[in-house]
Amino acid sequence: MPASPIRKLVPYAEAAKDKGRIVYHLNIGQPDVKTPEVVMDRFKRVKLDVIEYSNSEGFLSYRKGLAKYYADNDINLNVEDIMITTGGSEALLFAFQTCLNPGDEVIIPEPFYANYNGFAVMSGIKVVPVTATIDDGFALPTIEEFEAKITPNTKGILICNPGNPTGYLYKHEELFKLKKLVTDNDLWLFADEVYREFCYDGATPYSVLNLKGIEQNVILVDSISKRYSMCGSRIGALISRNKGIMAAALRFAQARLSPPTMGQIAAEAALDTPPEYFEEVIEEYVGRRNIMVEGLNNIPGVICPNPSGAFYCIAQLPIDDADKFCQWMLESFEHENQTVMMAPASGFYASPDKGFNQVRIAYVLKKESLRKAVECLAVALKQYPGRLEFEETLAPNV
Amino acid sequence: MPASPIRKLVPYAEAAKDKGRIVYHLNIGQPDVKTPEVVMDRFKRVKLDVIEYSNSEGFLSYRKGLAKYYADNDINLNVEDIMITTGGSEALLFAFQTCLNPGDEVIIPEPFYANYNGFAVMSGIKVVPVTATIDDGFALPTIEEFEAKITPNTKGILICNPGNPTGYLYKHEELFKLKKLVTDNDLWLFADEVYREFCYDGATPYSVLNLKGIEQNVILVDSISKRYSMCGSRIGALISRNKGIMAAALRFAQARLSPPTMGQIAAEAALDTPPEYFEEVIEEYVGRRNIMVEGLNNIPGVICPNPSGAFYCIAQLPIDDADKFCQWMLESFEHENQTVMMAPASGFYASPDKGFNQVRIAYVLKKESLRKAVECLAVALKQYPGRLEFEETLAPNV
Repeated sequence: MPASPIRKLVPYAEAAKDKGRIVYHLNIGQPDVKTPEVVMDRFKRVKLDVIEYSNSEGFLSYRKGLAKYYADNDINLNVEDIMITTGGSEALLFAFQTCLNPGDEVIIPEPFYANYNGFAVMSGIKVVPVTATIDDGFALPTIEEFEAKITPNTKGILICNPGNPTGYLYKHEELFKLKKLVTDNDLWLFADEVYREFCYDGATPYSVLNLKGIEQNVILVDSISKRYSMCGSRIGALISRNKGIMAAALRFAQARLSPPTMGQIAAEAALDTPPEYFEEVIEEYVGRRNIMVEGLNNIPGVICPNPSGAFYCIAQLPIDDADKFCQWMLESFEHENQTVMMAPASGFYASPDKGFNQVRIAYVLKKESLRKAVECLAVALKQYPGRLEFEETLAPNV
Repeated sequence: MPASPIRKLVPYAEAAKDKGRIVYHLNIGQPDVKTPEVVMDRFKRVKLDVIEYSNSEGFLSYRKGLAKYYADNDINLNVEDIMITTGGSEALLFAFQTCLNPGDEVIIPEPFYANYNGFAVMSGIKVVPVTATIDDGFALPTIEEFEAKITPNTKGILICNPGNPTGYLYKHEELFKLKKLVTDNDLWLFADEVYREFCYDGATPYSVLNLKGIEQNVILVDSISKRYSMCGSRIGALISRNKGIMAAALRFAQARLSPPTMGQIAAEAALDTPPEYFEEVIEEYVGRRNIMVEGLNNIPGVICPNPSGAFYCIAQLPIDDADKFCQWMLESFEHENQTVMMAPASGFYASPDKGFNQVRIAYVLKKESLRKAVECLAVALKQYPGRLEFEETLAPNV
C-alpha cells in the first residue's frame, strides 16, 4: 500500500505569505495531490544514454498503454487513434488548426476554461459563447440556445466534461442533444475530458467517444496533468477515429518534432498507478467539495451549486463586482492574519456582461485550510464595502 | 573525468536493418552523442512530491543559470530577456506569432530547415526564400538579392547560424550586412543559433544578440537539444531585449501553461556539463566531417563544401534527381549488404526548382560507419541508372 497521495505540506499554497498574512490560493487548479510513487520511482531507474526525440506521435509503447487505459474506461480505440501531445493545450491547438480555418466559429458553453481563448486566437477562429446559468448548476444550454448561435461559419462545438470552471458533469441526455446538433449541422465536436477520473457521488462520466454515429466528427482532448497530479510533465493526447484528421494533425506534430521524452516515460509509468490511489484522491476531493460547497451555501446571500466532478465550483456572491472583491481581499482584508485568493468568474465568460458577481474556487487545499478559507470569506463578505444587502441578492441572477 | 560522450552503440541507426541490410541513417539530425552524465545523475536524485507546472516563462533558477551560460559565451542578457520554451520549435512559433501578423512576409536564405515552413503556416505568414548557392559554400546572399525580395509586407529575416542544413557559419561582415538590411527596412531579425557549440577549425560564432544598434529588433531562438544531445527534453528559449515582445510572448506562454518540468530539471543540470565534454564532442565531429566531406569530394562528380559548423553538409551529386536517387538507394541498392539513407535537399528549398541534385547529410554516426557510408555512396553513384556522366556535371550549378 503506497503512502497517502495527499501531501502533508503544501509550501507553494498554504504557506504562501504576503504582507505577513497566510493567503489561501483557491485561484488555480494546481492540485496538492502527490504524483503516484510509481512515477517518481521510475526516474530513479532511468537508464538512457541519450534523451532522444520520440516519434512525433509519441512512444508506441505508451500509445498502446493508453489504448488499454481507455479500454478499461469503456472507450475502445485503436493505437492509431491516439497521438501524444505536449499537454492537453497542444492537443486542443492541433485540433483547432487541423479541423478549422481562420474565420470559422466554435460554440462553447460559458463559463469555460479561459485558455481556450488563447488557442482560438492562435488559430484565427472565433469563439461564440452560449451561456449556461448558475440557476440550474451550469447544465448544458438548450438545443434552441445553441441553434440561435449557429451561422454559416459555425464549424464546431467545444465542451469540457466534467467542467472547468463549473464542475458540472454532463448527463447522457445532454450529450445526446449535442450529438443531434452535431449531426444536424455537420459540426466537429471537440471535448476536453481531462477531469474524467474526478467524478463524485457515484456519477460516471460518459465520453463523447462513445456517441454512436458521429465517430468521424469527434475529437477528444486529454491530459494526464490532473489525473496523476503531474501537470508539469506536459503530456496530453489528441484522439480521433477520423483518419484524415489524425493524418493532418501528424503534420503539425512533425513540425514540433516530438512530445517530451521524460514526460512520456513518467506518463507510461503512471499507467501502473494502483486503484487505491484514485480511491483515496476521490474520497479526499469529495470531503473537500462538501466543506467548500456547504460552507459557501451557509453564508447569507451566497449561492454555490454542488458540482459532480473536477475540483472547481462557481459561487455567486452578494457583491457589486467580483474583480473588485477579489482584489480587495488581497489588498485590504485579513481575518486572523489570513485571506483568500480566488479567480473572478468574469474571466471564464466570453460575454462581457456575465458572471460579474461570481468567483471560481479550486478546492485543491487540505480540508482544514478550506474550512479556514470559508471562514475568511464569510467575514470578508460582512466587511466588504461593495456588499449587497441580502434582499438584493434575491433579484434574478445574471 | 567522465566516460566518453560518444556512444559505443547506436542501435536506432547503425544497427537499423531493412530487408536484411544495414541502413546508415544520415537523414536526420539525431546525434549519437551521449547526454552529459550530470543530467542522467540528476534524475536519480529527483525528490519531488508533485510534478508541478513551472512558471510560464520557466523556472527562475534555470533562467538565471542560462543568463550565466550566455555571459560565458560573451552574450550579456538580463534574466527577463529569457523565456524557457518547449524546444526551439515553440520559441520560433512564439516569435512568429508575437512579431508578425497573418500575411506578413519573412525572408529566409534557402536551403533552410524545413520545419520553418510549418511554423509559418501555423502563423499565417509567407516565407520568401533568397537562394544561397553551393558554389560559395552557401554564404549569405548579397544585400541586393535580399533587397530584391523586400515588399511592403516584408517584416523580418530569419537566419540559422551555424546553419542547418548547410553547416555554414556566417562571418562577422555577413551579419553586419544583415544589420544594415534590418535597420534600413525596419525589420525583425530572427536567428536560430541552436548549433552555437558546434563550430570547427577555430571558428567562433558571432551572435546576432551582439549586433549593436538593433537590440530591439533581434529575437533569438535557442535550444539545448543539440548542445547536450537531449533533443527529447524539449527545452528551448526565446530571447529578446525587446520588453514589449517578451511581454506579448508571455501571453502565448501562459496559454500553454508551462514548459516541461522534468526537461527543465534536466536542462538546469546540464549547465554543469564539464568543458571536456564539448572538447571531446567537437573533436569527434571534426573527425567525422573530415571523413565525410573529403570522402564525398573524392567521388567523381560530387561537390561538397566544407562546413564550419553544425553537423550537416550539403552535397551535389552527378544525378538526375536526388529524390529518385535516395529512394533507389533504399529500394534497389545494396553494397556488401549495406545502404545509406539521406535527405533529398529539395525539401530544404522553398523555390520549386532548386536543389534537385543535392542531398543533405547529417554526419551523426561513428567514423567507421561514415567511411562505409561514403563507400556505399561511391558504388551507388556508379550503378544508379539516372547518373550523369562526369562532363555533364561541369555545367553551371543550379
